[in-house]
Amino acid sequence: MKIEPKTLKGFRDFLPKEAKKRQYAIDILRSVFESYGFEPLETPALEYEEILLGKYGEEGDKLMYRFEDNGKRKVALRYDQTVPLARVIAQYSPRGGAGQNELVMPFKRYQIQPVWRAENTQKGRFREFLQCDADIVGLDTPLSDAETILVAAKSLEKLGFKNYKVLINDRSNLFTFEKDREPFLEQGLKIIRAVDKLKKIGREKVLGEIVGKGIPSEQATYAIQTIEQMQPTERLQNIFALLNKLGINEAQFEFSPTLARGLDYYTGLIFEIEIDGYTAGSVCGGGRYDNLIGMFAGREIPAVGFAFGFDRLIEAMEQFNLFPAGIDATTKVLVTIFSPELKEKSIEVSSRLRSNNVSTEIYLDENAKMEKQLKYADQKNIPYVLIIGPEEMEKDMVTVRDMKTREQKTVPLTEVIEKLK
Amino acid sequence: MKIEPKTLKGFRDFLPKEAKKRQYAIDILRSVFESYGFEPLETPALEYEEILLGKYGEEGDKLMYRFEDNGKRKVALRYDQTVPLARVIAQYSPRGGAGQNELVMPFKRYQIQPVWRAENTQKGRFREFLQCDADIVGLDTPLSDAETILVAAKSLEKLGFKNYKVLINDRSNLFTFEKDREPFLEQGLKIIRAVDKLKKIGREKVLGEIVGKGIPSEQATYAIQTIEQMQPTERLQNIFALLNKLGINEAQFEFSPTLARGLDYYTGLIFEIEIDGYTAGSVCGGGRYDNLIGMFAGREIPAVGFAFGFDRLIEAMEQFNLFPAGIDATTKVLVTIFSPELKEKSIEVSSRLRSNNVSTEIYLDENAKMEKQLKYADQKNIPYVLIIGPEEMEKDMVTVRDMKTREQKTVPLTEVIEKLK
Repeated sequence: MKIEPKTLKGFRDFLPKEAKKRQYAIDILRSVFESYGFEPLETPALEYEEILLGKYGEEGDKLMYRFEDNGKRKVALRYDQTVPLARVIAQYSPRGGAGQNELVMPFKRYQIQPVWRAENTQKGRFREFLQCDADIVGLDTPLSDAETILVAAKSLEKLGFKNYKVLINDRSNLFTFEKDREPFLEQGLKIIRAVDKLKKIGREKVLGEIVGKGIPSEQATYAIQTIEQMQPTERLQNIFALLNKLGINEAQFEFSPTLARGLDYYTGLIFEIEIDGYTAGSVCGGGRYDNLIGMFAGREIPAVGFAFGFDRLIEAMEQFNLFPAGIDATTKVLVTIFSPELKEKSIEVSSRLRSNNVSTEIYLDENAKMEKQLKYADQKNIPYVLIIGPEEMEKDMVTVRDMKTREQKTVPLTEVIEKLK
Repeated sequence: MKIEPKTLKGFRDFLPKEAKKRQYAIDILRSVFESYGFEPLETPALEYEEILLGKYGEEGDKLMYRFEDNGKRKVALRYDQTVPLARVIAQYSPRGGAGQNELVMPFKRYQIQPVWRAENTQKGRFREFLQCDADIVGLDTPLSDAETILVAAKSLEKLGFKNYKVLINDRSNLFTFEKDREPFLEQGLKIIRAVDKLKKIGREKVLGEIVGKGIPSEQATYAIQTIEQMQPTERLQNIFALLNKLGINEAQFEFSPTLARGLDYYTGLIFEIEIDGYTAGSVCGGGRYDNLIGMFAGREIPAVGFAFGFDRLIEAMEQFNLFPAGIDATTKVLVTIFSPELKEKSIEVSSRLRSNNVSTEIYLDENAKMEKQLKYADQKNIPYVLIIGPEEMEKDMVTVRDMKTREQKTVPLTEVIEKLK
């Protein structure tokens, strides 16, 4: 029986070119996160189902990959990194008394691992994707709010993005709006959900959506205006002042009273980051969520953080050419083998290059034609190729070929080492 | 209902200290692999069950995490990285005609991802662990065999191991031994399996094991001697000569005629690497396997490669103190906040440090006592702490505390920057 080689729908292979780009971005994010004192955390792919369902309840039923293991335990694949964080906090936090494995509080952690969602696939939606989170657990201060935004913004700058905008709001403004509408709380929620899309779909459509939910047009118009005219809370003003002092240019962030972030579990600050000219949506979202992290610890534990949409980041970096030239070249030079008789010289040359810290490949088949070896260098984008034939042997030189310009010259090996190391 | 926060048996959380060590080792392995022209590959965690079972057959039944997804597809979690590699080769190799997503052949790839095994757990055995593979696909040459060993050995050296030994054998020697015993092939296999353990359990026990399988003691003794006295094949001699030329010290490798690597799928070269003084077992194993990678492509595709036992590597690095001092410090300096009124100065100082590329934390709670802030630095192993109180403000200086020596001195900020950047 022939088995057809294929990947599952919604899952992806990352071949070298793609994998290198992703790794490049991950390395930058890690270094920025760590430079601000965020530390890495890794949690298992599989968890007890009851732990992962804790936050999502029945909704999680269909969204998660769940099954029974050989020991009849109900398990599920990691759906996000927030619930595992809440579990870790309960399991290893100082009050838990876990001893040497204790976490330092406030706990600033980042986590970059895949998550799995059994949802229907659509353009840009995958069933396996990399989640990239940074959070501060255990503090409810304006400075921790501001630092969260700072780290997200500086990460984007290090990736090479110049023009981005952080949209900022305070969920408590929206809570006030909801509360003012009591006993019509349900209506308040509907309005907020619709107004959240103002930038995306425009005023007309937002109005239509609200009216379509049974709210008279006049009331709807008034409600939209009310939200639009809300002013930054004192906490937000505080955060804005801190952002200025922390070195975020004022042109890079703005108060956005209609921003709601889908009425998720946020309790205070919420923000999104958009990149000018990248139209697929925001690349980062986050905020303060003080009621979630304590879910297993049995007490309230404040937290603030953000997540990058990693696939969007990569797409935007591609669009703005932010990957360095030559990122797909693994090595600097390919040492070819002129003929089986001359292979020892090529091996010797490759060893000398390597001992001078030049990333070097040697073509691993002494019987391959030179043409094939050059094609290999070309396909792998290796910038230089060395050829050591009988003439070069005699002169104790090597011929260097620049694969871009196709220029060749015969020089002493020391000169090549000097140039490439 | 209170949900108990716990991880599944056989699964692990990696808290920051552990996660950083693992990342340190991964980064080194990646850089060595890439310097030899190996390129990264990532494949999905979930695959069609029939693909993963292809190699393992019924044995895979219980060893794999398998289930039905919402679309009634039979899927399984990645069990190793070899079968996915075979799938990728069939799916994207030039002959497959996959167009722009084609692989460059010979394909030198490395892959560092978790795999899952539903086996019983025991000491040092986990159900989720990191697999770390490097392979060369599409060549059957002595030079590719030798490079595989070279890359494994150089990786260990870069990790800091000085005394290791590569044990090398050729499976074709053992095939010959088996063949000589026809029609007693079954006996030949039993003997090889037992003799493989010679180093681990000693001659007595090996003999006992063979005799226990119904082979007369005299024959067993003779068989052991026969294997022990086998000589390196021509191919091996070739590989040894290449290793010398590639710069592997002769003391670091040896011919080991009894090595069998569990009679796995290898067809030629096999090798294991042991670290002197680390007794839990070999940290690396590999060899040539020419009959496996073509399983989905429907043709023979030669391959040679190796895998590190990542958990053992980490354990051995720990034993020999190969992690650099200060690896658990994320940042170089913590800027404390003396009092809420003075926080702006601290923020300014942290920004100046950061713009000079000094990894800096600022304590994120302006109301925290100094003692608590110092304890935080201590717990996170941050080497320096800055204090900016009213006196320092007046003199336009900062107080630097060396957290190790507990020494403090008050100096201009520029001096701190000069020292730490």
